[in-house]
Amino acid sequence: MSNPITTAISGLVHTPRRTLMEACLAAAESSPAVFTRLYPETALATATWADAIRAKSIDLSPLAGLPVSIKDLFDVAGETTLAGSVVRKDAPPATADAPAVKRLRQAGAAIIGKTNMTEFAFSGVGLNPHYGTPANPADRQVARIPGGSSSGAAVSVASGMCVAGLGSDTGGSIRIPAALCGLVGFKPTARRVPTAGALPLSSTLDTVCAMTRSVDDCILIDSIIADAPLSIPNLPLSALRLAVPQTVVLDALEPHVAASFSATLSRLSNAGASIVNAPLSLLAEAADMNRFSGVEAFAWHREILATREAEYDFRVAKRIKLGATMSAADYIDLHAKRRNWIARMDQSLAPFDAIIMPTVPMVAPPIAELEESEDAFFKTNGLLLRNPSIINLLDGCAISLPCHAAGTLPVGLMIAGPAMTDSRVLAAARAIEAALKSA
Amino acid sequence: MSNPITTAISGLVHTPRRTLMEACLAAAESSPAVFTRLYPETALATATWADAIRAKSIDLSPLAGLPVSIKDLFDVAGETTLAGSVVRKDAPPATADAPAVKRLRQAGAAIIGKTNMTEFAFSGVGLNPHYGTPANPADRQVARIPGGSSSGAAVSVASGMCVAGLGSDTGGSIRIPAALCGLVGFKPTARRVPTAGALPLSSTLDTVCAMTRSVDDCILIDSIIADAPLSIPNLPLSALRLAVPQTVVLDALEPHVAASFSATLSRLSNAGASIVNAPLSLLAEAADMNRFSGVEAFAWHREILATREAEYDFRVAKRIKLGATMSAADYIDLHAKRRNWIARMDQSLAPFDAIIMPTVPMVAPPIAELEESEDAFFKTNGLLLRNPSIINLLDGCAISLPCHAAGTLPVGLMIAGPAMTDSRVLAAARAIEAALKSA
Repeated sequence: MSNPITTAISGLVHTPRRTLMEACLAAAESSPAVFTRLYPETALATATWADAIRAKSIDLSPLAGLPVSIKDLFDVAGETTLAGSVVRKDAPPATADAPAVKRLRQAGAAIIGKTNMTEFAFSGVGLNPHYGTPANPADRQVARIPGGSSSGAAVSVASGMCVAGLGSDTGGSIRIPAALCGLVGFKPTARRVPTAGALPLSSTLDTVCAMTRSVDDCILIDSIIADAPLSIPNLPLSALRLAVPQTVVLDALEPHVAASFSATLSRLSNAGASIVNAPLSLLAEAADMNRFSGVEAFAWHREILATREAEYDFRVAKRIKLGATMSAADYIDLHAKRRNWIARMDQSLAPFDAIIMPTVPMVAPPIAELEESEDAFFKTNGLLLRNPSIINLLDGCAISLPCHAAGTLPVGLMIAGPAMTDSRVLAAARAIEAALKSA
Repeated sequence: MSNPITTAISGLVHTPRRTLMEACLAAAESSPAVFTRLYPETALATATWADAIRAKSIDLSPLAGLPVSIKDLFDVAGETTLAGSVVRKDAPPATADAPAVKRLRQAGAAIIGKTNMTEFAFSGVGLNPHYGTPANPADRQVARIPGGSSSGAAVSVASGMCVAGLGSDTGGSIRIPAALCGLVGFKPTARRVPTAGALPLSSTLDTVCAMTRSVDDCILIDSIIADAPLSIPNLPLSALRLAVPQTVVLDALEPHVAASFSATLSRLSNAGASIVNAPLSLLAEAADMNRFSGVEAFAWHREILATREAEYDFRVAKRIKLGATMSAADYIDLHAKRRNWIARMDQSLAPFDAIIMPTVPMVAPPIAELEESEDAFFKTNGLLLRNPSIINLLDGCAISLPCHAAGTLPVGLMIAGPAMTDSRVLAAARAIEAALKSA
């Protein structure tokens, strides 16, 4: 089946919403493991409403009547939030939409359904033993992982069933699947979007955000879910000073990633960007600080785990239980170390408009390889999370853009900066996206 | 020696600052255990400057040139912050004034010296085995405790050596000594005043604030250290609906406290206030949540304690070490429980302008009794902290006012409310203070 949506939102100005929605719903119904629930009635009603209002040339959000998917981590009023698990099946239904969902609805988005995900959002791979693992649409021959934890969200957009997938990013859960599926994924500074109504993984690092097909679409969704539109300056590439960190983030790149990244740097440099190799040796400290999710998830899950561990994905339970042994004093110190590291990082990053790096060091591996081997799973998971999670620790913002040649497996370019530099990072992303498209 | 200052700041409008400062410095020099350092040169220079400017009728802050003391918990540029300990003697000197100190200086305050305190601010009693325990000036016959941890701060004001004492309040460290020494002590909502440059006890509960001789003086100091003046409405007593909680806070009152509180309620009621007995049974949950200081202090102190515990006040080391056993998950849960309790408390308190109660259930006991008996010390400490610490857990604001008959030992009346109700609590305090004075 061909993709109903093959363009960014700006390419859909003249597309009737109802017809589009019917095609998207048909595609969604025939795509295994992408959605955990579909909302055909309300989605069609919203599309029909948008067509009627748009026919009178009344000014609506460009999102009005277009299909948007919601990761099954977010509360939708009247339904139990499963978060990719089976232990949540008997949890009470949500009493209200999560604020991010509510804001999308208020902007006129047609919520097409809830998307599958890594159980409790706890891995960057995207396997789900309960509801299946959606295959990455970038390769029609080999079933490859979509990346996670927002796995269904990525496939719902990459397969053209939605213009945007609402998800969350605690260590890369938006940017990893965006990179592996060839999408744009933006993780804003966490505080900008409310996390209420989302089942928590790490109260310190969780960020509510989305994947789309273009930088402008990410800006649109961000302005809606943050309820505070950013002012994005129009910067030429020649105004940008971009740093490529030489510590950690370039380690163990697969050849196709290394070649795509290198070609991208050349192209940006030729288009006028100033690209600087920066040591940024402080990045070596990040891995040891990456212990918030385990312990914060353990605090949330321990009562359920105590009686129902067998119903968890063993890979998820294993990682959560690692949080059991930390002392309160070590946790308090961890926060203090993070604050101190952020302050030093912000200093190191001050000379640059943004840092750029490959989002992840690999292309999407086959699902079967990771299902067969626990070692391969945990090694791959660590490599997928390595670069993106640095930005969560930094309390920063980052966007992943496709940077591979047409016809090859997707590779993501990550553009990142410190907390509350979202406008600048997005301005850089827009300039970079334009340069990569025009080449 | 008689007290140099016997009035609130408004009574000092025509008093030459230099003459007053000389008397205050003389009193300070002859008062044991109140100050750990005096700054005669800069204090006199500031007083002299204020006299010169005031002589030209130039509008200065009413605080300009008046003596203010600083608890030795706050950084003063160029000096080591001792926090009442000896283990800090070889710590490096502070590189800058704490923001609260800096703001007082910018308002023209003459910093007279740094005041003694409970070691590391960790008790409400005020004993200090290293630098001595300043006696409570309310009783010239028996050496009674001043209350703590801002012990020297209270005595510096109650003995008329300062118009205000800057201190901190984590579980009552401003309000307890204010109550026991017959002063006004205001603990604002914690977030309103920066805690930077203050040696931490509990990063969750620490509040920077001050003791003075009147509500208006507390408002003046608060507006300076918060760098954001509050707008305090002028409310008549008859506009106030005050609740007296019937859970926990009235337990085990000493007869003089019970009688003073009861007489105060009658007087306020006769003056037109609406006083309601409210069950507020949620207050019973507070004691079990009171575990932030121990674990947060342990995280800060554990490296020093590991090698230098013998140099600590054994009572302080004992309490800090209680924080060693908490797990990170329990600490995360404790924060979640507190947030949940605050939400329910805010609901319960919504029908009232403020709650009122005795600040502490006792008058100041003799120093000797508590030095002799560890049991008596810990029992007294628990009782002193019981009521004030509820407001820290609530993330609220509270003020303690004297409410005893002249010639009797001081008793404090606490007026309190939820977070960010500082304006209303202070308006109530001003009306109550006026009613109690006019009686």
